[in-house]
Amino acid sequence: MSAPGLTIWLTGLSGAGKSTIATHVAGHLVQKGHRVEVLDGDVVRQNLSAGLGYSKADRDTNIRRIGFVADLLTRHGVVVLVAAISPYREVRDEVRHKIERFVEVYVSCPVDVLAERDPKGLYRRALAGELDHFTGVSDPYEVPDAPEVVVDSSVESVDESVARVLQAVERLLTAGRGNGRAPGLTQSRPAAPGPSSSAI
Amino acid sequence: MSAPGLTIWLTGLSGAGKSTIATHVAGHLVQKGHRVEVLDGDVVRQNLSAGLGYSKADRDTNIRRIGFVADLLTRHGVVVLVAAISPYREVRDEVRHKIERFVEVYVSCPVDVLAERDPKGLYRRALAGELDHFTGVSDPYEVPDAPEVVVDSSVESVDESVARVLQAVERLLTAGRGNGRAPGLTQSRPAAPGPSSSAI
Repeated sequence: MSAPGLTIWLTGLSGAGKSTIATHVAGHLVQKGHRVEVLDGDVVRQNLSAGLGYSKADRDTNIRRIGFVADLLTRHGVVVLVAAISPYREVRDEVRHKIERFVEVYVSCPVDVLAERDPKGLYRRALAGELDHFTGVSDPYEVPDAPEVVVDSSVESVDESVARVLQAVERLLTAGRGNGRAPGLTQSRPAAPGPSSSAI
Repeated sequence: MSAPGLTIWLTGLSGAGKSTIATHVAGHLVQKGHRVEVLDGDVVRQNLSAGLGYSKADRDTNIRRIGFVADLLTRHGVVVLVAAISPYREVRDEVRHKIERFVEVYVSCPVDVLAERDPKGLYRRALAGELDHFTGVSDPYEVPDAPEVVVDSSVESVDESVARVLQAVERLLTAGRGNGRAPGLTQSRPAAPGPSSSAI
């Protein structure tokens, strides 16, 4: 009936550029006639996860809720861009396996570069020990094992990152309904390990 | 591009027939080529509202979350059927005003009829004073002021109720994008009263 959906999941530290890249990619895809929705971590947290904190359990619950909504939209033909820190690998993989078509984009940027940008002064405060549960400083961030796309906002421009995400997305959208891995973009790794995968 | 979306919100007591009617309506609409999603109150509560209880505040939060998801899907062309007790008028009206096209279906059934059906024995226990927060017995249910459709499962068959919902939906789907009220189906009432409407 209409083009099949897809979830593009951007993970990375606060300030790395997830929302900026998501917004630009969304703009390009809208122009091409796709139905597009950006689920920004902060907005979704307000609407679906008020009351949750930043413990591992609460962060995982928040990510599962975003995944639930992304899955619904994807199944109805929407290209969903999720921009959420999503620091834990296991729940990211859980969401990946739930959603039929899924592209993981790791938006990488070293903490020292983020601490230089730091428009809200959050890294400075976290590095000074004033902020608990600040991902990458006082809370863990688990780098993806095998994301479909890695961009590094410390060495490439927004346009370059956007172009690389779009390239991966186009391959998947033209490849038809697949298993959630874009052919030719997959890094080799054994079938998803960890206790979460058996529970799906 | 494709048919515009719509939210059909079924409200009423537990056991009144909301999910049954929603499932049947969904089946008919899928056959007609619509994208359809049923958001069942219990399923959504599991996925989006684990940890919330049955106080007015928690019930309202749960309804707002369902409304958030229904709105997203509706904006992307999906016909969404929500089957949720949703006992409080103010938050139902809040959700109505947020979603561009909205049909409220009040699934009515007297408590004494529900207590006779009572497959899980819940009404019996609630009427015996053993269950707190049981809507219609030990917790309030606010009957809609002006729903687009009222069905009464104590006096009409599922097929009759389904036919009446479909009739209202078809009118709205053929009337084009509107203000969330089906012309000719609206009962007159003053502009939505209450403190919630100004906050939308």
